[in-house]
Amino acid sequence: MIEKLRQLMKERDLFAYYIPSSDFHDSEYVGEHFKARKFLSGFTGSAGTLVVTQEEAGLWTDGRYFIQAEKELEGTGITLFKAGVEGVPKIEEYLAKVMPQNGKLGFDGRVVGVTTGKDLAKKLEEKNCEIVYNEDLVSIIWNDRPSLPTGQAFLLDEKYTGKSYTDKLSELRETLKDKKADSHILTTLDDIAWLYNLRGSDISHFPVVLAYTVITKDEAVLFLDETKLTDEIRAKLSQVTIKPYDDIYEYVKTLEGKVLLDPAKVNYAIYNNLQAEKIEEQNPTLLAKAKKNEVEVQNIRNCHLRDGVACTKFMYWLKNNIGKIEINELDAGAKMQELRKQQENYIEDSFSCISAYGENAAMMHYSATPENYKVLEPKNLYLLDSGGQYFDGTTDITRTIALGPVDSEIKRHYTAVARGMLNLSRAKFLHGVRGLNLDILARSPIWEMDIDYRSGTGHGIGFVLNVHEGPNGFRWKIVPERNDSCVLEVGMVTTNEPGIYIEGSHGIRIENELIVQNGEKNEYGQFLEFETVTFTPIDLDAIDPQYMNETEKQSLNNYHKAVFEKISPFLEPEEKEWLKTYTREI
Amino acid sequence: MIEKLRQLMKERDLFAYYIPSSDFHDSEYVGEHFKARKFLSGFTGSAGTLVVTQEEAGLWTDGRYFIQAEKELEGTGITLFKAGVEGVPKIEEYLAKVMPQNGKLGFDGRVVGVTTGKDLAKKLEEKNCEIVYNEDLVSIIWNDRPSLPTGQAFLLDEKYTGKSYTDKLSELRETLKDKKADSHILTTLDDIAWLYNLRGSDISHFPVVLAYTVITKDEAVLFLDETKLTDEIRAKLSQVTIKPYDDIYEYVKTLEGKVLLDPAKVNYAIYNNLQAEKIEEQNPTLLAKAKKNEVEVQNIRNCHLRDGVACTKFMYWLKNNIGKIEINELDAGAKMQELRKQQENYIEDSFSCISAYGENAAMMHYSATPENYKVLEPKNLYLLDSGGQYFDGTTDITRTIALGPVDSEIKRHYTAVARGMLNLSRAKFLHGVRGLNLDILARSPIWEMDIDYRSGTGHGIGFVLNVHEGPNGFRWKIVPERNDSCVLEVGMVTTNEPGIYIEGSHGIRIENELIVQNGEKNEYGQFLEFETVTFTPIDLDAIDPQYMNETEKQSLNNYHKAVFEKISPFLEPEEKEWLKTYTREI
Repeated sequence: MIEKLRQLMKERDLFAYYIPSSDFHDSEYVGEHFKARKFLSGFTGSAGTLVVTQEEAGLWTDGRYFIQAEKELEGTGITLFKAGVEGVPKIEEYLAKVMPQNGKLGFDGRVVGVTTGKDLAKKLEEKNCEIVYNEDLVSIIWNDRPSLPTGQAFLLDEKYTGKSYTDKLSELRETLKDKKADSHILTTLDDIAWLYNLRGSDISHFPVVLAYTVITKDEAVLFLDETKLTDEIRAKLSQVTIKPYDDIYEYVKTLEGKVLLDPAKVNYAIYNNLQAEKIEEQNPTLLAKAKKNEVEVQNIRNCHLRDGVACTKFMYWLKNNIGKIEINELDAGAKMQELRKQQENYIEDSFSCISAYGENAAMMHYSATPENYKVLEPKNLYLLDSGGQYFDGTTDITRTIALGPVDSEIKRHYTAVARGMLNLSRAKFLHGVRGLNLDILARSPIWEMDIDYRSGTGHGIGFVLNVHEGPNGFRWKIVPERNDSCVLEVGMVTTNEPGIYIEGSHGIRIENELIVQNGEKNEYGQFLEFETVTFTPIDLDAIDPQYMNETEKQSLNNYHKAVFEKISPFLEPEEKEWLKTYTREI
Repeated sequence: MIEKLRQLMKERDLFAYYIPSSDFHDSEYVGEHFKARKFLSGFTGSAGTLVVTQEEAGLWTDGRYFIQAEKELEGTGITLFKAGVEGVPKIEEYLAKVMPQNGKLGFDGRVVGVTTGKDLAKKLEEKNCEIVYNEDLVSIIWNDRPSLPTGQAFLLDEKYTGKSYTDKLSELRETLKDKKADSHILTTLDDIAWLYNLRGSDISHFPVVLAYTVITKDEAVLFLDETKLTDEIRAKLSQVTIKPYDDIYEYVKTLEGKVLLDPAKVNYAIYNNLQAEKIEEQNPTLLAKAKKNEVEVQNIRNCHLRDGVACTKFMYWLKNNIGKIEINELDAGAKMQELRKQQENYIEDSFSCISAYGENAAMMHYSATPENYKVLEPKNLYLLDSGGQYFDGTTDITRTIALGPVDSEIKRHYTAVARGMLNLSRAKFLHGVRGLNLDILARSPIWEMDIDYRSGTGHGIGFVLNVHEGPNGFRWKIVPERNDSCVLEVGMVTTNEPGIYIEGSHGIRIENELIVQNGEKNEYGQFLEFETVTFTPIDLDAIDPQYMNETEKQSLNNYHKAVFEKISPFLEPEEKEWLKTYTREI
């Protein structure tokens, strides 16, 4: 395959060709059609970039994948470049070195972000290299390339979204006016789905439709595969002009005036096809989408209640069957999915669950496969991180469950994680606070033990959308490219998931979701607080109260009281009895 | 006076003249010589800028001073511009409006910062106005202008500083080399004092010498009034070229190559006299000075011990004399100073103390004067915020003391402030953390009650230098111009001073100083923790243990145990007895 690619490169006089792992929309997960780097290199990890010249082919990936990449690249002749390791050149440094004077670098500009494209162009400036961004060579050699998905789209009812797409469009146009923009190019799939109250099935776990949109003062143009729309949808989207998916690339050439776009999100091809003046800013829909309205918030409460019923039933099932029937990690994950499916409004899981037993739970990116899984035993801890897409919301919950007696060190760790989770949940703060101000509340019981969990404490989450959504989050370091450090606003939903991961031994994570709500407003300003919407017991079998102070015990007791009140009405008598014990006061 | 100024302006064809409140070094406090704005306007507040044209004279000041300024400007014909109030133009906006095409704006460029000067120049660009920055008109009309201070300088012994000035110069030159700078202009008085281990008495409470310095690869030039140096100092500063104070302005014209300077600190005249290429960066000495070395840290411990003895003796005296003899706010402040003076190595107070009784303590900028003070009564709370300059360190401590029975609301507030102070003190955190990540630990017990203290939680503090020193601090909002949000490093000293201020009723602040120290280093990184160096009881008469959880009670008990152990050996028997009671376990 690499040889075929080299042939095509020669014909086009391209010195190097660049193949990343993205779709046209900078999506977090991409469909099979977009897995060109995997097709060409054989490397299956989620992150990696392939660069091919006539002399060499190199694959760049990060520390999560070094071992896997080495194995998968064996015999392919492709060199592994370990990104982030000292002495290993970055892609742009590598290219700046190997490219000849006036050489040409080719890529499909639809799968390369503006920032990356610009960085490459800048690095190659000195050698006066040319960037050829309209060459999709992979499609020529990939004969059985999976087609783009063709699943039907659907409109999310206003009883779920709380706001019509026409109102959202009006508000967006107001914002554009304030910013003196004549039009706006929006290419992120979750923003488009949110704006038009449109959902689909083009990416698994992520109910969006592959689409682009351009909003001008008097037109909203939606570029997508029209066969995905029923007549009913077309009728309801009467204020929207529908055009074929690919037409965006020619369309943007016709735009005049000032065009607002987010250079961190728009692809290089659209950006460079655009002749008009650019206003480069974060998509205004990002913040609007994150601040869930009251109808969305009520729906989120509703779907979390059903999700909590499924999770509590799962916990009951696991606690009562471990040691009696054989259960492996795959079985347990499947059981959770089955219980979720039984709930009203269920669409699909919101991500591929992490079902991890014992030391497997210490690997933060672990996923059990039919080739590689563990059987659960009536000892140590089992961690399940899972979630659902419902018509009335998206959930993400982690519970770590003791499958039998656990030793005192594990209890101390488990109790610290629970304390951190509860301490952040009961934060009260003035408007203006960001996640980076609050992260310490969850992390300090763990830092106190000279342990860290090496990740943020939580991420924003969409409404019937992506399970990872900015710009809110809990993280003590500012990481600009993550864009998750915004000021917390009413209606924002964020996960709260501290953890402890001890290699070769055990992993603990306890995750609830929190919604920002108004507290008192007085001379000092507007106070805010969190509403917890996740209701499933925190396993008391792994809690040691001696490590908790009264405030923390009271928090846990209050939480468990709420779990019982909310969840027990939906349980069978024996489950209810069990829940009573597992939500008892300590 | 304003008329005389206008006459001089006319002669020089200046349309407007600008008089700020600064010295030549952007110092926080300025000497009498520099109070030109006060001299011309009669307004005595610490912050304010006067702008004079032929038609109008305007004074800009902030919310702290609106009432005072209105009173003091009465009858002067000077218009008050309330800075920060909606609709009130900023100075540069005002000037951009009133200045004529090609008009000239004059000021003494030595008292105007680069940022301010550039902002003015930019705003006036459209009207093609000229900035004349070498006109010190105030000196011409201010006949009895106080001369510049002439107090003697002294060298701080290496047993205090822990490092010779030659070593500091070598390290600074290394840094300059790394930054590819040929020379460095340094004009901030605390940095100069730190670099040369030189101290003086040119600004009260702030033992510095008015000076500038330029460090090149092979020369260190110190510009100051040479009469301040004894022969002994000159001999010890043998590697330093001494030049007259004012010579810097001509000297910088001769610099070649690349010159590193901090545009937030250097004055406009120096900046504009400089012809060489500029590297505009924070002064490297800022960070080096903030990270106290081990000798400094040991000295800080020593001086805090003596300071704690003085403060504990004060608390004993006050508790035992209130209601028996008449004590007013001025008396109490004087008593504290007297006790501090009795301590070894005392130089002067590190700031003018805040001695505030009852509702006066609710005013954060209150200071008792012979014209305006309160008599202390055996009820309510008394707040004393004070500190000392010693040859072995600078202290800043606040204690709030119950002078008699206090009601339950006050106890609840007092306990919350103590909890916040103790919670921050026991923080444990990974290297990389900034004050903004930790501020919530001190603030949350107060935010929990829907109250805020509207200021940062703490500030960095110098070593025998300024009581306010960057770049470290505790503040939840990032305020770029304050530059107090750096990553916390070992040896940094920061105050920890949460509070509650209830207008018309009471004010509470409890302040200790914390030094960053190394904790465990392991696979997760370098853990850090705080060492508390302030030892004086937190008044148990105002603490209600019912508002504290076990962890917090234990923190308070541990702290009081340390207070007793460290302070009691230096007390009289009756004081020692008293301290035993006031450091008892709760």
